[in-house]
Amino acid sequence: MATATLTIDLDALLHNWRALDARSGAETAAVVKADGYGLGADRVARALMRAGVSRFFVAAAEEGAALRQAIGPDPEINVFSGHMRGDTDMISDMGLTPMLNSVDQIVRHVEALPAHPFGVQLDTGMNRLGLEAPEWDAVRELVLQRGPTLLMSHLACADDPEHPMNPRQLAAFKEMTDGIEVPRSLAATGGILLGEDYHFDLTRPGVGLYGGMPFVDAAPVVSLRIPVIQVRDVAAGESVGYSNTWIAQRDSRVATIAAGYADGIIRAMGEKVDVFADEAHCPLIGRISMDMIGIDVTDVTTEPSEVELLGQHQSVDTLAHAAGTIGYEILTSMGQRYQRRYKSS
Amino acid sequence: MATATLTIDLDALLHNWRALDARSGAETAAVVKADGYGLGADRVARALMRAGVSRFFVAAAEEGAALRQAIGPDPEINVFSGHMRGDTDMISDMGLTPMLNSVDQIVRHVEALPAHPFGVQLDTGMNRLGLEAPEWDAVRELVLQRGPTLLMSHLACADDPEHPMNPRQLAAFKEMTDGIEVPRSLAATGGILLGEDYHFDLTRPGVGLYGGMPFVDAAPVVSLRIPVIQVRDVAAGESVGYSNTWIAQRDSRVATIAAGYADGIIRAMGEKVDVFADEAHCPLIGRISMDMIGIDVTDVTTEPSEVELLGQHQSVDTLAHAAGTIGYEILTSMGQRYQRRYKSS
Repeated sequence: MATATLTIDLDALLHNWRALDARSGAETAAVVKADGYGLGADRVARALMRAGVSRFFVAAAEEGAALRQAIGPDPEINVFSGHMRGDTDMISDMGLTPMLNSVDQIVRHVEALPAHPFGVQLDTGMNRLGLEAPEWDAVRELVLQRGPTLLMSHLACADDPEHPMNPRQLAAFKEMTDGIEVPRSLAATGGILLGEDYHFDLTRPGVGLYGGMPFVDAAPVVSLRIPVIQVRDVAAGESVGYSNTWIAQRDSRVATIAAGYADGIIRAMGEKVDVFADEAHCPLIGRISMDMIGIDVTDVTTEPSEVELLGQHQSVDTLAHAAGTIGYEILTSMGQRYQRRYKSS
Repeated sequence: MATATLTIDLDALLHNWRALDARSGAETAAVVKADGYGLGADRVARALMRAGVSRFFVAAAEEGAALRQAIGPDPEINVFSGHMRGDTDMISDMGLTPMLNSVDQIVRHVEALPAHPFGVQLDTGMNRLGLEAPEWDAVRELVLQRGPTLLMSHLACADDPEHPMNPRQLAAFKEMTDGIEVPRSLAATGGILLGEDYHFDLTRPGVGLYGGMPFVDAAPVVSLRIPVIQVRDVAAGESVGYSNTWIAQRDSRVATIAAGYADGIIRAMGEKVDVFADEAHCPLIGRISMDMIGIDVTDVTTEPSEVELLGQHQSVDTLAHAAGTIGYEILTSMGQRYQRRYKSS
């Protein structure tokens, strides 16, 4: 077996959802877009349903359609990108609830599916998705007559609790929605941690469920073990890997492990992380290749047959830091070649 | 539809294979590991068979097994990682040819499948896969008696034709294999371009087939078109996207497009690339999010309903440069959410 094993701890996932639910003074939904942040939307959503989640969020109608087939007819599936051209049949047949983002989308939805549920996304300053305040003013009476299921917006800077953008967006959201008798949602993981003012009727955690920052108390959900293909002696002065970037400074033992950037081990990490053979640190050496990486096992007592890249020793955020990115990208880059194992009590 | 469309031009792929085959004074195989460099190993391999390819290379036995089911019993499927623990049944049942990398693997193979074909990978200086010269000396007589199908090695610096490592590895390979009556292979794409001395009996191009450097004459194989979700006015001084990193310097029109780093648009690209609305450049603005990116369409005459990130205007290597990586990583990161369309005459 020259493929790594990604173990997804569904108990830890449920623990994280419950911990965020406990901090959320509102109904707590779950975001399972991008295939459940790379961990398998079907398995993740079915596990969360056991904890009581009945509302999910995805990015695109295609994701919603696949999720519907995995979780059955009951849970509500909300689509952030709203009602795009070509989505009508999927929205209707699969019972999806689009979060309408623009006047164009509202017109498209009302004309094509006049009786079908929808929510509305409002822009409160991120300028990414949702109606601007003047657009909302122009259409709100008409829209509210049709009974939207949710009014929502999204925070641009929630990962930084001190950022002045947070209260500014909160004020804009209240200004646009106060007094309206429709459920409201503003907070994802970061917003939940900002406190009660941000919670409204529904929160929608994503990355915190999967063990990523900004939820510092998250239990680790993923572990990744990579098999060793072979181990060799490398004499001082010899090079390892593409472009000879690593030169042995001493006589060394070098192992080649069976995963690379095609598996989402972002090439920019370079030599800035270690893998673990039991408790021993083994530095990555040389360039990360497509399917393989070299590691230095000179100081390891027993040569390992596999090593750990993610798990109790090291989180997605440690890898993200090494790659100059965020934990979210580490999660969503997880490779298709990994054997995925789901652990649950 | 809030999912992008990745079009894979199989005619361009075959053109690239034929161009490399013409430069290769030997049989020309094809490397289709990492799901055909992200483009779909099944479709890619079946197309290449029409051009006459009868030998393929994959990274792991699991990939070989899936490929066998896609292409039928005839073509030879070689596995770079060799014969790993747990691979025996797959190698045997799926008719795979492991490239044995170590004495351990040779012993494992000969004990488990004494009559089953195998090749041998030799290390000529990259220190990644294959037997070291002293190991090879110790076992070569025994191995050769069993009739390996191929003796191969891999170049560490072939992308740089002037690198002194290339002739050094060539000399080491000849030293280890001259006089042996077994087919030999040293060159992947870069090695083919180094010239005849490097070709031996079999070449095995990978990235060049898919339109990536170092094969500068490659025809582009992929194009990627991303739908626009909505377009909005953004006043001078307003911000766009996470952490408010982009601030409008003038009153602007900003579109949100439906793809992000979860689709393999590496986050590190940041604002360093453009997308194209017909011929017009539209700069990416703000942070790349998981499922969306902002673009500046202020100077575009007709607001687009979709834009091109990859295609005639821009290659995988342009994106790679912006992300501080290589075209290979852009290819193998291509998202699972893309609708894949195969074009062939």
